[in-house]
Amino acid sequence: MTSAPTPNRITLVTLAAADVAALTAFYKRLGWQPEAELELTSFFDIGPMKFGIYDRAALARDLGRSPDDLGTGAMTLAQNFADKGAVDVAYAAALAAGAQPCKPPQDVFWGGYSGTWADPEGHIWEYAWNPFWTLDASGFLTGGA
Amino acid sequence: MTSAPTPNRITLVTLAAADVAALTAFYKRLGWQPEAELELTSFFDIGPMKFGIYDRAALARDLGRSPDDLGTGAMTLAQNFADKGAVDVAYAAALAAGAQPCKPPQDVFWGGYSGTWADPEGHIWEYAWNPFWTLDASGFLTGGA
Repeated sequence: MTSAPTPNRITLVTLAAADVAALTAFYKRLGWQPEAELELTSFFDIGPMKFGIYDRAALARDLGRSPDDLGTGAMTLAQNFADKGAVDVAYAAALAAGAQPCKPPQDVFWGGYSGTWADPEGHIWEYAWNPFWTLDASGFLTGGA
Repeated sequence: MTSAPTPNRITLVTLAAADVAALTAFYKRLGWQPEAELELTSFFDIGPMKFGIYDRAALARDLGRSPDDLGTGAMTLAQNFADKGAVDVAYAAALAAGAQPCKPPQDVFWGGYSGTWADPEGHIWEYAWNPFWTLDASGFLTGGA
């Protein structure tokens, strides 16, 4: 559906960081390998998208906002896993990497299993097993637009 | 690389919304078709990931945070386009849908072309052409992990 001016796509998610090196180090402790590590930014490949960590002041400038008004609306990132056990293993690995626990993995009202944690600068991740979504061999959701 | 407990993947991005129906309507005006529209949430398919809009109070509860402490760290979403003209067309469509302009599309220091806007609840998007990244026919980045 690329005929529309804005098809249903997200190709980059960027986290603002007061300390790019330290926040990058946290994600490396999760096992993520950056494709680039620069002074003001780092980038990770995520299949058909990218994940970036970017200096907070530089991001504010790029966005056309003042550094005091960088609030970009509450957003949460999530990763889905194949089963509850994989959620538990990954959640433990995140805490071991320095994540702050928010809600330990537990059965949740919508029929799945989910835990949440915050990275060292407060970006929240959910780790979940969703019985209604299936994953392909590369860990991405099957189906989709 | 699914052998690691947490491979480089994001499978869901969720925006907190004070008014789910109104924020969903904005993304529909961008041309996105939700796969589900419920009272407290809506979901959109994005190839191998999902994009969700979720009631702010419910999200805070699910995340294990108080509604007064939902700040989840500054994050920005982005969509890449095949050329500068496609960025301009998409940016105009976003403003027509009710987005607030932050920075009009312009040549930027890293060699690309980029504009930013905020949705009605302040989540910021970048629309960009990046000469160093290529897109496949479905509008996703080529290469990747």
